[in-house]
Amino acid sequence: MEAELSPSVLGITMPENLAVGLMIAEHRARCASRGCDFEYAAFALGQSPFPVPDVVAAALREAASHGEYVPTLGIRPLLEQLPGFWARHFGMQRTADDFVVVPGAKAGIHLLLSMLRGPLLIPTPAWVGYGPLATLVGKAVERLPTDQAVGYKLDPERLESHLRAASPGQRLLILNSPNNPTGAVYTREELAAIAAVCRRNGVLVISDEIYALSTYDPTQFVSMAAVYPEGTFVVSGLSKFAAAGGYRLGLVVLPSECSADHRQIFQKVGAATYSNVTTLVQFAAIPAFADSPVMVEYLADTRSLHALMARELQRRLRAVPGARICTPDGGFYFMLDLNDVAPRAAARGLESSGEVAAALLGHPIHVALLAGEATELPAEDLSFRVAFVDYDGAAAMRRYRAERPAGPVAEAQFVEAAAPRMTEGVERLSRWIEAL
Amino acid sequence: MEAELSPSVLGITMPENLAVGLMIAEHRARCASRGCDFEYAAFALGQSPFPVPDVVAAALREAASHGEYVPTLGIRPLLEQLPGFWARHFGMQRTADDFVVVPGAKAGIHLLLSMLRGPLLIPTPAWVGYGPLATLVGKAVERLPTDQAVGYKLDPERLESHLRAASPGQRLLILNSPNNPTGAVYTREELAAIAAVCRRNGVLVISDEIYALSTYDPTQFVSMAAVYPEGTFVVSGLSKFAAAGGYRLGLVVLPSECSADHRQIFQKVGAATYSNVTTLVQFAAIPAFADSPVMVEYLADTRSLHALMARELQRRLRAVPGARICTPDGGFYFMLDLNDVAPRAAARGLESSGEVAAALLGHPIHVALLAGEATELPAEDLSFRVAFVDYDGAAAMRRYRAERPAGPVAEAQFVEAAAPRMTEGVERLSRWIEAL
Repeated sequence: MEAELSPSVLGITMPENLAVGLMIAEHRARCASRGCDFEYAAFALGQSPFPVPDVVAAALREAASHGEYVPTLGIRPLLEQLPGFWARHFGMQRTADDFVVVPGAKAGIHLLLSMLRGPLLIPTPAWVGYGPLATLVGKAVERLPTDQAVGYKLDPERLESHLRAASPGQRLLILNSPNNPTGAVYTREELAAIAAVCRRNGVLVISDEIYALSTYDPTQFVSMAAVYPEGTFVVSGLSKFAAAGGYRLGLVVLPSECSADHRQIFQKVGAATYSNVTTLVQFAAIPAFADSPVMVEYLADTRSLHALMARELQRRLRAVPGARICTPDGGFYFMLDLNDVAPRAAARGLESSGEVAAALLGHPIHVALLAGEATELPAEDLSFRVAFVDYDGAAAMRRYRAERPAGPVAEAQFVEAAAPRMTEGVERLSRWIEAL
Repeated sequence: MEAELSPSVLGITMPENLAVGLMIAEHRARCASRGCDFEYAAFALGQSPFPVPDVVAAALREAASHGEYVPTLGIRPLLEQLPGFWARHFGMQRTADDFVVVPGAKAGIHLLLSMLRGPLLIPTPAWVGYGPLATLVGKAVERLPTDQAVGYKLDPERLESHLRAASPGQRLLILNSPNNPTGAVYTREELAAIAAVCRRNGVLVISDEIYALSTYDPTQFVSMAAVYPEGTFVVSGLSKFAAAGGYRLGLVVLPSECSADHRQIFQKVGAATYSNVTTLVQFAAIPAFADSPVMVEYLADTRSLHALMARELQRRLRAVPGARICTPDGGFYFMLDLNDVAPRAAARGLESSGEVAAALLGHPIHVALLAGEATELPAEDLSFRVAFVDYDGAAAMRRYRAERPAGPVAEAQFVEAAAPRMTEGVERLSRWIEAL
């Protein structure tokens, strides 16, 4: 019996980074038992390499017997940790009732797209997940290309002219800072300019700030909600800063006005679809948001290590003729632009970023990058996302706490020792580009 | 700034059982610290009262550091436990690839309703959650009333005549056995007759079997997939049999044909919306499905206790003139029919099940029942769902293992001692009915 499927699911594609990431994880699991004749350099999947903070894992063990249902919006002791965390890290004054606990940041965006009327504006390049979520909820998408020359940041004038030409009515804009895939971090002035356009045109913002705590200079991060409090839904969560993607705990910070109304809608939709976020994970999350020296140290060290890896891998790639690189200010990613070698790639039959990524993934290179086309760039734009998290984070953190490399030579040695798959991957990638 | 909302969320209501259940939980939490001058008898929320099995909580503690992402369809060691579990308990031969791990049974139904084309047929009375999920995904609903006289079971002839009169095309039927709210368990013959109608008319079945392991006589439970393997999606999970509603781990068993195609759709939709079910919860679930003496004993004892509570509370309510009661064969619920006292209720201004439930909840009765109208019965039908799980399950299990009451007198004493809030609640309810 052949089941007929809903039109909305037929349009969804499997995110390439997940598919490649899991293929590599399976390859490594097999190799662990039988041995393998090659190793992937995995620059595709953006997962924190660090261990879950000890205080979080300990709280989880203590909460193991919590099998009960709890309020859909989140347990009170967790909600009460959040205003302090937001105040300390982002200088924002909010109350516990401005927050909603959701089953992951992705689920938070899904809920918002289900709740809020109007088409979704997506600046591109973009995270692989926004498009499929919009498709699934039947939402129209309007894409706003950004320029590499300005660090792939959304130009408020382009936004304004797009809105002038568009049909009237409420729209949603998804902003992402620090950005995946580009590593861009918006300044307060840039956000204020975008906010002004949004305010004039009835655009609500879904601000995906999941990478906020990985901004290399923490004073540089500004939340969209700081400049557009009345029209911004912030999405955040545990996954990146506490290395807990598999825990599935996200947060939504509601706009300063009408937050009681919005809470009620989250409660109804959440109760109808997921009941509550895994109870024991909510208890485990409390110390992640608490003001403790161990979390302060964990956040500082993980942030420094991300910055160090970015710096060193970029230094190595910059030496390759034909490779252009966009410097990140936060997150786990930067963009590698190979358009200068496009004619040489075309001569070998590689005419799209997807074809180049496939060639790099295969024998004998085995380097996994995310093709620009998966980030909604045109297929013929030979740009790629490099995720620099393929190393043993626990070992790297121990090593870093013991030595803290200062200066380029020490950093090169550190990364060579702590992240050999990545340095070897950059090596292979460089040779491949040079040999094109 | 007032956000405009999507039409699909505007139609959703907060499930009354959750709202009342959480109100009571908050009341009790407050009382624990300050004392209270009354106690609710909570027959509204259907949550297992037992502790999570020790082997599950222990596995969870061991898995605490698993912060990583895992495959959307479920981790392999969990999937590989499932065919054996299904064979032992339900006599069904399936492979690991026939199963999908989802974030709760409710989320499994949500995913299926998103994936599968066609209107949803809901036999009524029905679980409070089906209607809101259909509304949320924009699915049309066709309701099929059932008769109390035949234990509220779907009549295959009524189904057939409904389908004959309906527009052509694929439909989905949600079946629920053991049933919430009625406690009805379908026999093999009854399921086969429904399957024959479905097969002839292109109806796919979503079989909600979340209460399967609470069937009082375990040989009586039959899965719809046993008689309609090619057209049934079974929904199940940890919440009821392992007392782990808050863990949020559900399962879908795919139809025997095309299960690879359906897996691919689950993978795409799951990857787009929730990434994976909480990783450490998946590891914790492995021993829940393993073949171990401790789980066999846990399942037998929890099943016996549910049956015992049902028996004893029914015995007490049957003594009340005007109260009719439908005997459950599984699950945590039975229906209480007060239509015989409707004229007396109407004389006090109570003309719907919702009004009666509100009167019972308030001062001085404080008895929480779920009104029949929340289960999609007509408002004027004075029927109510009684959930009989408001007791300390850990203490009751210890007591039960020590004494195992035999015969009505011992059972009455056992329930009086183990579940005083429930016996007191039945007392109050009886007095209220008699005094109407």
